[in-house]
Amino acid sequence: MKQLRGKSVKRFLKAAGAPAAELVFVLQDVEDAVNVGAAFRIADACGIREIVLAGISAHPPHPTIAGVGRGTHRRVPWHTTKYAASAVEKYREAGYVACALEVASDAVPYHTVAYPKKVCLIVGNEYRGVSQRTLDACDLAIYLPMYGKVRSLNVHVALAVATYHILHTQNPQ
Amino acid sequence: MKQLRGKSVKRFLKAAGAPAAELVFVLQDVEDAVNVGAAFRIADACGIREIVLAGISAHPPHPTIAGVGRGTHRRVPWHTTKYAASAVEKYREAGYVACALEVASDAVPYHTVAYPKKVCLIVGNEYRGVSQRTLDACDLAIYLPMYGKVRSLNVHVALAVATYHILHTQNPQ
Repeated sequence: MKQLRGKSVKRFLKAAGAPAAELVFVLQDVEDAVNVGAAFRIADACGIREIVLAGISAHPPHPTIAGVGRGTHRRVPWHTTKYAASAVEKYREAGYVACALEVASDAVPYHTVAYPKKVCLIVGNEYRGVSQRTLDACDLAIYLPMYGKVRSLNVHVALAVATYHILHTQNPQ
Repeated sequence: MKQLRGKSVKRFLKAAGAPAAELVFVLQDVEDAVNVGAAFRIADACGIREIVLAGISAHPPHPTIAGVGRGTHRRVPWHTTKYAASAVEKYREAGYVACALEVASDAVPYHTVAYPKKVCLIVGNEYRGVSQRTLDACDLAIYLPMYGKVRSLNVHVALAVATYHILHTQNPQ
C-alpha cells in the first residue's frame, strides 16, 4: 500500500467516471464565505450541476470563496437570486425533488430516503436554518442523526455527508 | 413541515439513540486547528470513542479548536502521541480494523467496504496526507471518489462523509 502523488492520483481518481445523480444545491442565506467556498469545492467533487446562492448568501467574487473553494466557482455553474423558494419551485417544475437539510417537524433521517435521480438539496442560514417560507416550497426535510451534545454540524459538513450519500445510493459501484 | 427550535430540536434528535459502531479517530499531523476542531465536533455528533492527535497535530488547549469544535474537546476523550503508527497498532491489538483515508495504491472507494463494528479511521496531514509509515500500520486504505477537477476534499469533510457512512451501514434504522 503506497501513497500516490501528482499524476498517479489524477489517473487513480479518473476511474470514478461521472455520477448518475443529477444534483443541484440551493444555499439560502448562507452568510459565511467559508461555507459557500466549501460548498463549491464539494459541488466540484460531486459533479453538482448548479448552485443557487439565494438571499444574503456570500457569493463570488470573494477571496475566501475562491480560497476555500480552490477556484471551483469558475467551474461549477452558479447564480444568485433573491428568494430561495422561487429557485426551489423552478427546480421542482423541472422534475427535481426538493430536500431541505433541516430539523423540521416531519424531517426524516437522510439515510432512510429513496432518492430519485434529480435532487435539489437546500441548506439554510448558519443560525436560523432553512426559513419557513423555503421549507414550504420543499418536498421533504432530511436531517443527520446527532448522537452527541452539539445539535448540529457545520452547514458544509452536513451538505457533504448528504450529497455523498445520495451519490452512492444511486451509483453503488 | 415546521422548523423546530430549542428544546424541540433536542427532543427530536434524542430519538437517535446511540450508534452501534465503535469508532476512533487518529489524526496524523493535522496542522490546521480548524480541521482538528471540526473533527472534535464530528466526533461528538457521531459518538466517537476517542481521538488520538499524533505528531504535529494541533491540540487543545487552542482557541480555534474550542471555537470550531464548540467545546466538544471537553466531551470526547483524546490524547496526543508522537507516532500515529504506534496508536494504530494499539487499536489493532484491541480488535479495531484500521482504515486510512488516503489515495494509496490499493485504496478502495469508502462505500464499497463491509465495515466491522470496531473501526479506527486515520487521516493525515493537509498537504502530505497519511505517511507511508502510518499506512504500513493500517489494514486498508479507503478514498472518496472525486468527480471534478480538485483532487481532494478538506480533511474534516472527508472524515465526516466516511464516518457517517460507516455509522449508517451498521445502524441502518
